[in-house]
Amino acid sequence: VPLTRTELKHIQTLLSKKGRKQKKMFPAEGVRLLEESIRFEFLPQMILYVESAMSSRAIHLVSEFARRGVRTIDISARQLDNLTETKTPQGIVGIFDVPSRTLSELYTDRTRRILLCEGVADPGNLGTLVRSALAFGFDLVVATGHSADLFAPKVVRASAGSVFGIPIVSGEVAEFVDFAAENRVALLAADPRGAVRVESLASEISGHCTALAIGSEPDGLSDLLLEHASARVRIAHSSQVESLNAAVAGSILMNEIYNLDNKDSHEK
Amino acid sequence: VPLTRTELKHIQTLLSKKGRKQKKMFPAEGVRLLEESIRFEFLPQMILYVESAMSSRAIHLVSEFARRGVRTIDISARQLDNLTETKTPQGIVGIFDVPSRTLSELYTDRTRRILLCEGVADPGNLGTLVRSALAFGFDLVVATGHSADLFAPKVVRASAGSVFGIPIVSGEVAEFVDFAAENRVALLAADPRGAVRVESLASEISGHCTALAIGSEPDGLSDLLLEHASARVRIAHSSQVESLNAAVAGSILMNEIYNLDNKDSHEK
Repeated sequence: VPLTRTELKHIQTLLSKKGRKQKKMFPAEGVRLLEESIRFEFLPQMILYVESAMSSRAIHLVSEFARRGVRTIDISARQLDNLTETKTPQGIVGIFDVPSRTLSELYTDRTRRILLCEGVADPGNLGTLVRSALAFGFDLVVATGHSADLFAPKVVRASAGSVFGIPIVSGEVAEFVDFAAENRVALLAADPRGAVRVESLASEISGHCTALAIGSEPDGLSDLLLEHASARVRIAHSSQVESLNAAVAGSILMNEIYNLDNKDSHEK
Repeated sequence: VPLTRTELKHIQTLLSKKGRKQKKMFPAEGVRLLEESIRFEFLPQMILYVESAMSSRAIHLVSEFARRGVRTIDISARQLDNLTETKTPQGIVGIFDVPSRTLSELYTDRTRRILLCEGVADPGNLGTLVRSALAFGFDLVVATGHSADLFAPKVVRASAGSVFGIPIVSGEVAEFVDFAAENRVALLAADPRGAVRVESLASEISGHCTALAIGSEPDGLSDLLLEHASARVRIAHSSQVESLNAAVAGSILMNEIYNLDNKDSHEK
């Protein structure tokens, strides 16, 4: 079944935040991202492709989606142009449902490591943090305040497909603080002026559910979050710079937590 | 003295790589970046500003530059528009000379930590790596291959002004490999498939000049560099992701080296 003009228009609106919010769908372009969606079994509603513009790897990918029951539709290069943001699309785009599960639905008694992004407005930083969260064994990513839209094309790209591999949800910081208190989730606040290093918290966080909160530049975390934090953790660095990039700081702290969590296996 | 039309045209070309290469100058916009240029005593040739568009902080900054003998020129909002990339410039831009010192001029017997960016084409990643290099006590940044232009506006912005605080130079990877061999600089290659963790190299790198090499995504480091590396270092992470973002990976490894270099002071 070819794509109707109305469908095409709907899909076009997914490049805007408003369109994604209304339709509860998001696009993801390119071979690598879509391969990740298969690897993580996060399948799209449909795959749109331009056969003449595709590599053999992309052609193989389309047949993989078809084999899994995904609707695959051959469109024109001109139609694709209207659906994508990048200058050199690889002839393939997937249309996905925005996950609808809420924080309390995603949280279980096995949840141990949560990344809270508070007002991380730069989509590159937000996507990079999602990628690092998956890399460092985190279970869940929550984005609050003025954080970028979790399913914006730039976030999805910067995540290198990790948005398909780890549950992510947006919400309000006050809600999250209440949620953390109710569920005895310890809040670690990343703070350049913090007093504590992650390594000194080994016994406190071992086996306990802990949320690491990363703020935006240059404002950092909200007062509300800082008040409820059980510790303010810092990264040791030279005084030559005031602070690190938000994605770098969050990734270093997640890496330190991962190293504590896997200490025994390292030493073997 | 007001700006001549010819001067304005010349400055406009600095938004392109070609223009920066020809004129050996680069622009840096905004209050924060320019405050960093004062802090690091890396002064511009001239400051262009739009008095009506400036905050009191920016006005103070202009007088600080004037006090240091920098030529400061009031221009029109329309003129500024042609000189800047951002949508909301803060009414102030500095025009700087590209540093001209070469690798062998910058290298001294006190140089201990070098960051080599091999083909880091994303300007946000390159700038973030420069920022982390300064934060983690590195002495020098070298960018080779298809790395982004070290003084492109996006690199300068992503560095948060760190380009003013640490010597940075571009070159060819083959040159650098020769240079490292001649000067007995150990090459550590960041490699997701590497066998070694930084912590196990403590005695090898302690006090010795070491260059940490970071490659681009998805290709990684060149064969030439890998052949000459004394070790391939990896970051422990879950197998859920193939690799980390290049700026994150480089920053984590620099952080680990920094922690080794400052181990005694931590333990106090």
